[in-house]
Amino acid sequence: MLYFIGLGLNKDQLTFEALNALKTCDKIYLESYTSNYADNNIEKLETQIKKKFVKIYRAESEQGFSKIIKEAKTKNIAFCVFGNITSATTHSSIINEAKDNKVKIELIPGISIFSVIPMLIGLEEYRFGRTVSIVKQEKNYSPTSFFDYILQNKELGLHTICLLDIKIYKQSKYFMQPYEATIRLLEIAKEKNINTKDWKIFVVSGACSKKENLTLTNLKDLSQKETKYNFPSSLVICAKLTYNEKENRNKIKNV
Amino acid sequence: MLYFIGLGLNKDQLTFEALNALKTCDKIYLESYTSNYADNNIEKLETQIKKKFVKIYRAESEQGFSKIIKEAKTKNIAFCVFGNITSATTHSSIINEAKDNKVKIELIPGISIFSVIPMLIGLEEYRFGRTVSIVKQEKNYSPTSFFDYILQNKELGLHTICLLDIKIYKQSKYFMQPYEATIRLLEIAKEKNINTKDWKIFVVSGACSKKENLTLTNLKDLSQKETKYNFPSSLVICAKLTYNEKENRNKIKNV
Repeated sequence: MLYFIGLGLNKDQLTFEALNALKTCDKIYLESYTSNYADNNIEKLETQIKKKFVKIYRAESEQGFSKIIKEAKTKNIAFCVFGNITSATTHSSIINEAKDNKVKIELIPGISIFSVIPMLIGLEEYRFGRTVSIVKQEKNYSPTSFFDYILQNKELGLHTICLLDIKIYKQSKYFMQPYEATIRLLEIAKEKNINTKDWKIFVVSGACSKKENLTLTNLKDLSQKETKYNFPSSLVICAKLTYNEKENRNKIKNV
Repeated sequence: MLYFIGLGLNKDQLTFEALNALKTCDKIYLESYTSNYADNNIEKLETQIKKKFVKIYRAESEQGFSKIIKEAKTKNIAFCVFGNITSATTHSSIINEAKDNKVKIELIPGISIFSVIPMLIGLEEYRFGRTVSIVKQEKNYSPTSFFDYILQNKELGLHTICLLDIKIYKQSKYFMQPYEATIRLLEIAKEKNINTKDWKIFVVSGACSKKENLTLTNLKDLSQKETKYNFPSSLVICAKLTYNEKENRNKIKNV
């Protein structure tokens, strides 16, 4: 059996169904290249459940998950992911590979950043459009489609959750900071001749950790100071707020 | 202290942080008018945590939450919700009322139907547009805006999660069935002269329960038979599927 388990955003967000599955497992893999706990306390979870996690990095996953799938033919194996399990495309690949190999699978959801963000800043879940990822510009890779989607959402009166680029390798880590994301957004806005002066932006960082921080700001202010926010940081670009949302924003948390 | 706690979609989806909060509470309220467990097993959870839930219905909540808030000034009180905590507007009202009364609050997220649906049917979370609610047509209440939003999403190449109307009172319960929702969609399509012949639709019912069922169908077929699906039932109206999504759809679950 191969369990796909969402761990949530901190160790206490583990669900009982996740714990019960982990207890039966002979080996537990932890996907360690698309996310992490904000508190970096996976060791505390290991102590709590009295099992060790074997970390998997991007290079290994790109070579295929054949080893894990082979093990899961005869043993109970867990493939754990921070947050929820289906946000990254590689996760669906391993699920499909397992199915191709007739390995029995079970999907166990975890608390998702997508559920937590609207809750923290008091915006209505029905008023979010498609989510985008803001990606680091590289030599031959300079997408701007995320900007178009933000505009599209704004025109429809919808908020946009923007996830920020992450590149975690065994030897190096890169987490895009909100000010970098904002500089990129301002560059594209200039190219496209879009006025972003009135855009209201939330920075949600370290969600569900002791370092949690919510900041309401705008593109220009955010871009001008190299403030380091805690992982994970996301931006929410707001559409026009409803009366309720304004009330909530002022009251749910003191932003 | 007033805890707002998401219970998830079945009793084993309770998180440790929810359990730890419940343990400290003198009284536990359960919002019982916008949702429920598919398995109806809140009693099992009561046994497990050795505490009773006091159920709250719509009428009581509309009279205001003043009693609960007054209690929370001197005691630890929990306000529990099935799934996640911020999907219903009334929930933000009580949060705001607590804040106005200077009652300390803590928000504890739960596994959300919004995270579970894309996972179960293998559609990419980035390709969902705004969520809609399909509401029962009544004498002086006949909204069609949800249909426009579905069209909008479709035009942008995005899937739509459609929640179905629920009316739970102390003495009566109404859960809109997928075939009723579909009949309403077909009526509006006819009025607006929209061809829905090619629309692919998932019915996701009893998510995360033993009665879980996933059906891939179309509007016409779904509307023609009064099939009763298990609670909670949602529809997903698909945009054009990507290659990956087709692969996933065939493999994640045998729909």
